[in-house]
Amino acid sequence: MRCEVVAVGTELLLGQIVDTNSSWLGEQLALAGIDSHFQTKVGDNLERIIEAFKIALGRSDAVIACGGLGPTQDDITRDAIARLMGAELKRDPLIAERIRAMFTARGRAMPDNNLRQADVPVGAKVIAQMPGTAPGLICPVGEKVIYAVPGVPSEMREMVSGTVIPDLQRRSGSVAVIRSRTLRTWGQSESGLAEMLTGRISALDAAGNPTIAFLASGIEGIKVRITAKGVSDAAAQAMINDEEAHVRNILGDLIFGVNDETIEHCALKLLRQRGWTLASAEWVTGGLLAARLSAAQGADEIFRGALVACARNAVPDLLKGLAPTDAESLSRAMADTARRTFATDVGVAAALDQRPADEGHLAGVIYLALAIKDTMHTQAVKLPRDSERMRQFTVIGLMNFLRLKLQDN
Amino acid sequence: MRCEVVAVGTELLLGQIVDTNSSWLGEQLALAGIDSHFQTKVGDNLERIIEAFKIALGRSDAVIACGGLGPTQDDITRDAIARLMGAELKRDPLIAERIRAMFTARGRAMPDNNLRQADVPVGAKVIAQMPGTAPGLICPVGEKVIYAVPGVPSEMREMVSGTVIPDLQRRSGSVAVIRSRTLRTWGQSESGLAEMLTGRISALDAAGNPTIAFLASGIEGIKVRITAKGVSDAAAQAMINDEEAHVRNILGDLIFGVNDETIEHCALKLLRQRGWTLASAEWVTGGLLAARLSAAQGADEIFRGALVACARNAVPDLLKGLAPTDAESLSRAMADTARRTFATDVGVAAALDQRPADEGHLAGVIYLALAIKDTMHTQAVKLPRDSERMRQFTVIGLMNFLRLKLQDN
Repeated sequence: MRCEVVAVGTELLLGQIVDTNSSWLGEQLALAGIDSHFQTKVGDNLERIIEAFKIALGRSDAVIACGGLGPTQDDITRDAIARLMGAELKRDPLIAERIRAMFTARGRAMPDNNLRQADVPVGAKVIAQMPGTAPGLICPVGEKVIYAVPGVPSEMREMVSGTVIPDLQRRSGSVAVIRSRTLRTWGQSESGLAEMLTGRISALDAAGNPTIAFLASGIEGIKVRITAKGVSDAAAQAMINDEEAHVRNILGDLIFGVNDETIEHCALKLLRQRGWTLASAEWVTGGLLAARLSAAQGADEIFRGALVACARNAVPDLLKGLAPTDAESLSRAMADTARRTFATDVGVAAALDQRPADEGHLAGVIYLALAIKDTMHTQAVKLPRDSERMRQFTVIGLMNFLRLKLQDN
Repeated sequence: MRCEVVAVGTELLLGQIVDTNSSWLGEQLALAGIDSHFQTKVGDNLERIIEAFKIALGRSDAVIACGGLGPTQDDITRDAIARLMGAELKRDPLIAERIRAMFTARGRAMPDNNLRQADVPVGAKVIAQMPGTAPGLICPVGEKVIYAVPGVPSEMREMVSGTVIPDLQRRSGSVAVIRSRTLRTWGQSESGLAEMLTGRISALDAAGNPTIAFLASGIEGIKVRITAKGVSDAAAQAMINDEEAHVRNILGDLIFGVNDETIEHCALKLLRQRGWTLASAEWVTGGLLAARLSAAQGADEIFRGALVACARNAVPDLLKGLAPTDAESLSRAMADTARRTFATDVGVAAALDQRPADEGHLAGVIYLALAIKDTMHTQAVKLPRDSERMRQFTVIGLMNFLRLKLQDN
């Protein structure tokens, strides 16, 4: 089973919007074990959309068409699919009613244009999930199929997870279900993890199910993905549970989270379990730690706040004049001040050792400090010199250090 | 002249990397007045890369192939192009020498693999810019052309701006040069700007050169793009200068910056001109303002630091117990405290009015406060309720308020 993604929208070609939908779809298809060899972006032009669909259907079994289902005259994905199907568009009264009801519920008048969204090619099926006013469509084209989903990410994701991926798996026919779970790690390279797991990978290779794969996406650590095929969801999950136990046994606390959990999410969760609160004092990270923590769901019950110095010479303003010259003592004083200022259980901080390298030490070492209740913990880490990467790695390193300390207790 | 983008890399299809290169390329092509109707992503597979190039060259005059120029066995864009050209790959001794020298300069041993990057299809030209170890290539395929550029964004951008776009414009032959300038605005909708500029747009429509277009990319305000065709760079720039003067005359201080300037960059520039320093106290924005300011080039000479409260109930910790209950007074107290804590010329803050709406006021109003020397300025703004957008808009709104006040003085 091969499935391509065609993203529709002139704004994508002009670079006004970065096409994150296609990336997400690519990941979902890979996780579901469905091959996807090409992705295409095309503008809001009927002939060119049809051409893109034809090329994609010529070499794949299915297409996910993302975008162009809105209410305006620019939104012509429906028309292009109807042309390819050789079918008429027919207004679906139930969908029209649902769209009207949504506007009524929001207390807004419905522009007539919006009823265009209720136009469905004859022969297409409507996707059950409909979080917005644009219905998703399953459109047979000969023996093949186009799934039309809206470009609004939240709506698209709900339809794809709920209907498109299961339908693709059903069509592929080879197995009942494919399930995946991603274990997120911090502290080892991809090759280091591969070496640690080499025994498991060999053991699994013989049977070919479940499988282990590595994903090194972005800078938020390496992901270890376990994928299993089973006769049912329960069977696949049971295989994943077994394999996860093996992997956890080997990787231990290198694993910080599962699936979409970020490192700050994990640290906050451990704090929440204890009913503890958190504050930070930042210099190297310039507020980035606070920005990431405060953006996390429910953070405001745990994370109270931050004292931020942009440059080293502003740190004494935060410490009431006290500012030790060596970086390790400085990181401890900062963590302690954060904790006292906000009266929290935990204070965290990082300080960069700015001395040039000599025989006694490396250049560019960062000290991470945790003030947990009345105990103080520090760790020295060597991080990239590039300032943006240094900021990001310091945030992740600090949250990881906190997670490990909380797990230990 | 039509040019398509083909991005090469299995990691793009798997969603491990979001393809921001294609978005940037799409914007550059649009700015240069070159039509671009399709973008394709393809994995590291020789036959499929060739297929993607063939389809693209079949309907366009040129292709920018981005990625797959690295040193490993996966990097096969060169091979695919050579096959299409019907040419051999030949090692270029000058490039090989340059790659060797780069490794030597970094004090690292060069793996032999890296010399693969010096392999050039016979008949292709090397792009002059070469910031990394991967050379860019101009590869004629019949009457058409493939530009091969690396996937590393900074390297790709340098080659595209320095060679690819000018070469495409030369090939298009219609004019000597096309130049663009983008004026960045805050405080008006796209339709509002279009209405204000309707006179200019009509005046320009007759001649068709220069042109004005609007770009509503992301949430950082609407961009007004002036594009001019001229017999030389100087002629095009002169036309843009003239038109910019007209547009500035109409839009006034709605314009905050030019081209890539962000709102924080503009505010920092105005402060730098005065030799002034800045500090912030944050609650609604949770450290995002500090993170953005401290990431700006040279910020640490101007921006000293921030006091950040995640939730409203942590604000008193920052104000030494003083925390007025009404949001406007609170924003002023926060801005003043920021300024005093860091002994800066300017303190900025924002506070959300959390009272439910009644006859006297709207719900969800945010007060922006500026403490500039001994004067205090506040402004009430109504922002989106979605918390991530509210954070971003508050940061931008606050920096814009500061910019306007500094421009006034």
